[in-house]
Amino acid sequence: MYDVQRIRQDFPILGREVNGRPLVYLDNGASAQKPQVVIDAMTRFYEHDYANVHRGLHHLSTVATEEYEKVRHTIARFLNAADPEEIVFTTGSTEAINMVSYAWAAPRMQPGDEIVLSVMEHHANIVPWHFLRERQGVVLKWVEPEADGSLDPQRVIEAIGPRTKLVAVTHMSNVLGTRVDVKAIAAGAHARGVPVLVDGSQGAVHAPVDVQDLDCDFYAITGHKLYGPTGSGAIHIKPERMAEMRPFLGGGDMIDVVTRDTVTYAPAPLKFEAGTPGIVQQIGLGVALDYLMGLGMENIAAHEAMLRDYAQSRFNGLNWLNIQGNAPDKGAIFSMTITGPGHAHDVSTILDKRGVAVRAGTHCAMPLLAHYGLTATARASFGLYNTREEVDALISALELCHELLA
Amino acid sequence: MYDVQRIRQDFPILGREVNGRPLVYLDNGASAQKPQVVIDAMTRFYEHDYANVHRGLHHLSTVATEEYEKVRHTIARFLNAADPEEIVFTTGSTEAINMVSYAWAAPRMQPGDEIVLSVMEHHANIVPWHFLRERQGVVLKWVEPEADGSLDPQRVIEAIGPRTKLVAVTHMSNVLGTRVDVKAIAAGAHARGVPVLVDGSQGAVHAPVDVQDLDCDFYAITGHKLYGPTGSGAIHIKPERMAEMRPFLGGGDMIDVVTRDTVTYAPAPLKFEAGTPGIVQQIGLGVALDYLMGLGMENIAAHEAMLRDYAQSRFNGLNWLNIQGNAPDKGAIFSMTITGPGHAHDVSTILDKRGVAVRAGTHCAMPLLAHYGLTATARASFGLYNTREEVDALISALELCHELLA
Repeated sequence: MYDVQRIRQDFPILGREVNGRPLVYLDNGASAQKPQVVIDAMTRFYEHDYANVHRGLHHLSTVATEEYEKVRHTIARFLNAADPEEIVFTTGSTEAINMVSYAWAAPRMQPGDEIVLSVMEHHANIVPWHFLRERQGVVLKWVEPEADGSLDPQRVIEAIGPRTKLVAVTHMSNVLGTRVDVKAIAAGAHARGVPVLVDGSQGAVHAPVDVQDLDCDFYAITGHKLYGPTGSGAIHIKPERMAEMRPFLGGGDMIDVVTRDTVTYAPAPLKFEAGTPGIVQQIGLGVALDYLMGLGMENIAAHEAMLRDYAQSRFNGLNWLNIQGNAPDKGAIFSMTITGPGHAHDVSTILDKRGVAVRAGTHCAMPLLAHYGLTATARASFGLYNTREEVDALISALELCHELLA
Repeated sequence: MYDVQRIRQDFPILGREVNGRPLVYLDNGASAQKPQVVIDAMTRFYEHDYANVHRGLHHLSTVATEEYEKVRHTIARFLNAADPEEIVFTTGSTEAINMVSYAWAAPRMQPGDEIVLSVMEHHANIVPWHFLRERQGVVLKWVEPEADGSLDPQRVIEAIGPRTKLVAVTHMSNVLGTRVDVKAIAAGAHARGVPVLVDGSQGAVHAPVDVQDLDCDFYAITGHKLYGPTGSGAIHIKPERMAEMRPFLGGGDMIDVVTRDTVTYAPAPLKFEAGTPGIVQQIGLGVALDYLMGLGMENIAAHEAMLRDYAQSRFNGLNWLNIQGNAPDKGAIFSMTITGPGHAHDVSTILDKRGVAVRAGTHCAMPLLAHYGLTATARASFGLYNTREEVDALISALELCHELLA
């Protein structure tokens, strides 16, 4: 039994008010709030056990290293990776995807080589590829969503040509909530000898992920969206892809031997983890993932599906409200505009007066907004602790927007 | 009056025991402990004010953005930068120096171009330049320390040739404690038209830094060594150098407009800060720097000089103890070996039994250790909260090592 009221007690910030109203936090797509166990784990670690990792023989350093390396196992379990050594710690998906761009893609791409990506990608899965376009003449090939906001795997696969070297797609659109069948895309791409990178920034937050089943080559996650600390994250990389990667960041921990004239590198995954890492954040992420697995990702998915269905049923009655994307089985992410002169920023500002936190803007997905002819939407994105009553609060605040802005 | 006993009360971990003895934490060169105010600021922020930055109009996001951007001002004040816009947030010096390597150096270096660096650099200020050697034929020119472990600025300047494009030096050796006259180096290098990067990972921790006075082009700091959180840090970059840099990481926040075929970038410094940053760590770093400025960096330097002098006076009586480097005005960092078969790792392990935490190994400075013909040292590195009594505890534990290992 998923007891959302009990779960809300785990998140201290949810008890606060904003503008004299109870906080209704619907900006989970931008970042999620943290349960007390995550905050406490970091506090306790700093207060009692802190030291640098991998570098000392003294007691604190040994404890810190064990705690930190344990998280690699937790992440592997969360993603059902075959081996914790396939997990590289990063500061989030942005660093992860840039790592793939710099360390795997850049050295192997020639002018005219192609990367296939969807129009619904987040800038984090666009700009690193634009770098390759700008710097070495790589061609970006774009696949558009269907009318309902879904992404047809077949169209992605058909976009693969003889020069395609990579497919880079999101697991879930942060604007539309669309779930992408990355398993089908990976199967089709692999049949053509093309690796697949999946941006799991949203996908891993809202449903169980099994990277062995998906069979993608790269799967990036972002800790702060997973109810973990800022600056935490990881990427799962298939061993054969990892073997093809040159180092990305240089520094301590990632080397074997450094001389004046030579350098040799540590075995993967350490080879890709330079310098003192985000030790305490990653320990916090480990606790967050344990918390999520304790609730059960299937249960979280079911709860959010209930919220989605309820929200959609309420939205349907509002003929002045336009929601982008209604793909089957979409996540509980709603990008909206209201008919009339009201701008998405005005909507966000009025909602905030009612304590309802949503995001307004392009959501780091300008090509997708351009596809819809929009410059901004207001986005309500739900998380594991949201409730039907919060859907009601959103609707009520939207009705106020309609009244004020129509 | 610098009351070290009162200051120690600010650091909760210093009250704990290790192996039944009070913790004597002398591994500050690897990472420093955190005062309660830093820990509390992060806890409070997660519990009460957390949201993503730069991306929302709702109350929490606005508060988070203000808190986060305030830190840019704090860092500018700490380094006496002319303008907070000259500060780029990073996860630490390793990311910072790699940013300079990828974003500034790589696009402007031809095969045969040279980088001058000292043999006492940390791997974080070596490996990014080895990448340029491996990948584009850049030549690394090394300057050796003097017999006492000091670095003669004149020798660095004389190493600059017509093909030299950058000088990269540490402000303080993490192995020897040597302070480097980076102001003289910058003056000499600039007279030859060559920019200077300073690795301030240690230097900024132990004395006041004034980047305008030093006049270096790049100055990198690491938050976790500055009594701040892991994953925090920054780099000061002169505006004329920043204008020469292309983007490093691509993603959200660092763009202006993204289309399918084009991308334009945000103005600096945001141009160099892709994706959701280490929001809460950077807020913690701001508190840490305020704490340091509250104590006064001059006072911290004087306290550590007292510890250095006292430690040196005690070491002088131990003819079986070999300390590397005794440059004038060195920091309170001591790399040691003991005469006889005892290995540095054994020393560290025995010290740990007495609750004394030191680091053993190459300290991410293999070229320097090779210069001395060493494969490892045990390093005691002091911080603002260490005491004369802890020097005594170190000496007593070293005497035990001598007894057991001689």
